[in-house]
Amino acid sequence: MMAAGKKMVEEITARSDDFAKWYTDIVKKADLIDYSSVKGSMIIRPYGYAIWENIQSTLDKMFKDTGHENIYMPLFIPESLLNKEKDHVEGFAPEVAWVTHGGSEKLNERLCVRPTSETLFCEHYARIIESYRDLPKLYNQWCNVVRWEKETRPFLRSREFLWQEGHTVHETEEEAWQETERMLDVYADFCQDVLAMPVIKGRKTEKEKFAGAVATYTIEAMMHDGKALQSATSHYFGDDFAKAFDITYTGRDNKLYHPFQTSWGCTTRLIGAIIMTHGDDNGLMLPPKIAPTQLMIIPIAAHKEGVIDKANEIFDGLKDKFRVKIDTTDNSPGWKFAECEMKGIPLRLEIGPKDIEKNQCVLVRRDTREKFFVNMGELEENIKKILDEMQSDLFNRALENREEHTYTSTNLDDIIEIAQTRSGFIKAMWCGDVKCEEELKERAGLTSRCMPFEQEKIADKCVCCGDNADKMVIWGKSY
Amino acid sequence: MMAAGKKMVEEITARSDDFAKWYTDIVKKADLIDYSSVKGSMIIRPYGYAIWENIQSTLDKMFKDTGHENIYMPLFIPESLLNKEKDHVEGFAPEVAWVTHGGSEKLNERLCVRPTSETLFCEHYARIIESYRDLPKLYNQWCNVVRWEKETRPFLRSREFLWQEGHTVHETEEEAWQETERMLDVYADFCQDVLAMPVIKGRKTEKEKFAGAVATYTIEAMMHDGKALQSATSHYFGDDFAKAFDITYTGRDNKLYHPFQTSWGCTTRLIGAIIMTHGDDNGLMLPPKIAPTQLMIIPIAAHKEGVIDKANEIFDGLKDKFRVKIDTTDNSPGWKFAECEMKGIPLRLEIGPKDIEKNQCVLVRRDTREKFFVNMGELEENIKKILDEMQSDLFNRALENREEHTYTSTNLDDIIEIAQTRSGFIKAMWCGDVKCEEELKERAGLTSRCMPFEQEKIADKCVCCGDNADKMVIWGKSY
Repeated sequence: MMAAGKKMVEEITARSDDFAKWYTDIVKKADLIDYSSVKGSMIIRPYGYAIWENIQSTLDKMFKDTGHENIYMPLFIPESLLNKEKDHVEGFAPEVAWVTHGGSEKLNERLCVRPTSETLFCEHYARIIESYRDLPKLYNQWCNVVRWEKETRPFLRSREFLWQEGHTVHETEEEAWQETERMLDVYADFCQDVLAMPVIKGRKTEKEKFAGAVATYTIEAMMHDGKALQSATSHYFGDDFAKAFDITYTGRDNKLYHPFQTSWGCTTRLIGAIIMTHGDDNGLMLPPKIAPTQLMIIPIAAHKEGVIDKANEIFDGLKDKFRVKIDTTDNSPGWKFAECEMKGIPLRLEIGPKDIEKNQCVLVRRDTREKFFVNMGELEENIKKILDEMQSDLFNRALENREEHTYTSTNLDDIIEIAQTRSGFIKAMWCGDVKCEEELKERAGLTSRCMPFEQEKIADKCVCCGDNADKMVIWGKSY
Repeated sequence: MMAAGKKMVEEITARSDDFAKWYTDIVKKADLIDYSSVKGSMIIRPYGYAIWENIQSTLDKMFKDTGHENIYMPLFIPESLLNKEKDHVEGFAPEVAWVTHGGSEKLNERLCVRPTSETLFCEHYARIIESYRDLPKLYNQWCNVVRWEKETRPFLRSREFLWQEGHTVHETEEEAWQETERMLDVYADFCQDVLAMPVIKGRKTEKEKFAGAVATYTIEAMMHDGKALQSATSHYFGDDFAKAFDITYTGRDNKLYHPFQTSWGCTTRLIGAIIMTHGDDNGLMLPPKIAPTQLMIIPIAAHKEGVIDKANEIFDGLKDKFRVKIDTTDNSPGWKFAECEMKGIPLRLEIGPKDIEKNQCVLVRRDTREKFFVNMGELEENIKKILDEMQSDLFNRALENREEHTYTSTNLDDIIEIAQTRSGFIKAMWCGDVKCEEELKERAGLTSRCMPFEQEKIADKCVCCGDNADKMVIWGKSY
């Protein structure tokens, strides 16, 4: 049995040999994506899409619980509309796809395929907002967007991806700042509680912020190879977009004001984050809360009398409590075990003639491969307990990895050396000058990931130029 | 109170005066859509999108219960891929939007924005299907598509719309035919049971079938003005696409075969169908099973002690059982009643000081405006009962309307006269010749809606040419 299992496992590159190739092997061999003749885009296959559906339904509930409504905006943005906010168009115009013909006719004005929808939301808000009574507007959109990337990687960077974009409008600056923070908290809670992925909350530097934003908040996660993945962002816009798009409202004092706005988003790249946080040499590893299948039932010696019946009976007893499947194909158990591991299914349940005799079954954890012999009468509570433990163990293991790969540095030679010899986060002080960011990028390949909300006083001088510095920044290499 | 109610109601055109304008008034004033600077596209506003979310979640469950999985395909289709199936490209090429530039670069090959995704699915299937063991493949996709329509109307015909497209692959012809029928049944059940909209199941003529299909099945609904709305379609492809895209599998006898395919879809136009089936002069009317809000609680004399508390108490008691909202804005009750009617909320609940004294509240049905004085202890079962009755009454009323506007005809002068003087479905025999379809189109403005599965023998001669005919066709004017 192990031979078949091993055979399959051997097909993927070891994570420690070549992390990038290991990643690509998993997205293909766990049936998450496929390529097509559409360069730079991916097909999200049923198993990958089922993960996205779970992400979507969980986040959607969190958005609705915080008062947001969904809306659908057009896919296309007329060039003149995209051009309305100067910083925004500068950030996005170089990477958009342009529609120039409809049917056989050349269009009078080119349309870009939305890279993000601030401009459309703002145009709509200008039409529908009149009074403070119309505020706040708390809208979200689930959709596809296009950015014409040169280098692409499945989930992490592709020309088309799926995401959600929240766009909100508020009466006061304070309320808009609160919204910016609230939604970052929603993302952080989701990543930590559901994806078992620890994140650092912080603010992006001016250089790294969103095109058109006053401030960008981010959650940064460390992947298993020590690189950083920006996992979601939340932007405070002030009233810049409102001014550019002439959004006004009559205030409580009957005077006309510009409202304050935010936007926030996360994408299918979260699936990449799950892979690179938890996966191992046997394949994908899914946190139970997000796994499309939490438990796979595998009959052993399925040809023997009563085995399939018992397996079906177990399935029927569990199917309303967990996301459970049963594998009755004619593949060998060893092949099925390896397949379960490749697909990162948190638990497998083995049931064979001997187990039936003893009124028990065997549960095997995907992460530790621990085996549990469980009495049939206690199956449900044991599954629940093991899944809960696995969920928190995955989080703790990822946190440990991050802590092991987090360094501090107080001077330039040192930070360059760390960046050259190790992979991880480097905490260091920064004076606030973009020149130091550029120098660290050039000499050490580091970018500022964020200025964490939880600051530590590592030193009082900038790690790069030695000037006074009161901001601690997390530096890293990023996806 | 009625004054405010009336005022709002007067703002929409009477349905009998101008059906088209009445429709446009509703989509705007019930806050379903808004226009933007993107010509021919619509913004689906939160209330409209919430209806779509209910359609989507109900159908998605029905698709999954029949064994289908969701997948996501690229938005763009390279021109060469679109060109692979001759009939298909002829049908769609004239109405697609073309992307010619990515960023600042001109593309080597134009990409069309998907008008439908047969070509992408086929390319994928050719890659992943090897053996009969890989069949069937039962995939579905929820996405946006683009068709460059010249004349557009919200929900009914717009350049971009939301839909789902199922694409399946089968080992045998028989299985593929069964799938085509099964999914038409799913759509019919959904429309009738959930949207309270009677439909006629049938097959499209050769002239009206989908570009590239062997056969197209359809469900046709009659709108309140007597016009027909094609509400969903299910196509049998035979092995034509499989041959064009070189999809093969190794059969049970170890020989190579082309598999058989289907596709099936429905769109946001279903929202238009709901409006035009059930709406009246007071606005939208939503079947309880699809309504985002099934019950609106409206406090009367809300300033009086205890009213708001009682309304909140009722809300808390009902919120886990129904989709319920409470309107505590400072608008007048009359304004709120009219707003509820405009938005088609099935039931409103009025609660005021006198009701509290009597331990009762008032329920008012949106469709009949019937008032029910209900004891607090019996509230839940009464709401359930009234919603169930309203759901079936809406269906029966729509069915009556269809029956009242269904005619039969046996000769050309007669069918032309009916078409010129009345609006509705006309049952008539057809010889099978496309020339008769063309003549009826030209002289009576009629198109063949479908050849119903439930045939009746109206006559034995074609209504148009008088030749022998054994097919009864439903003719009508269509959206």
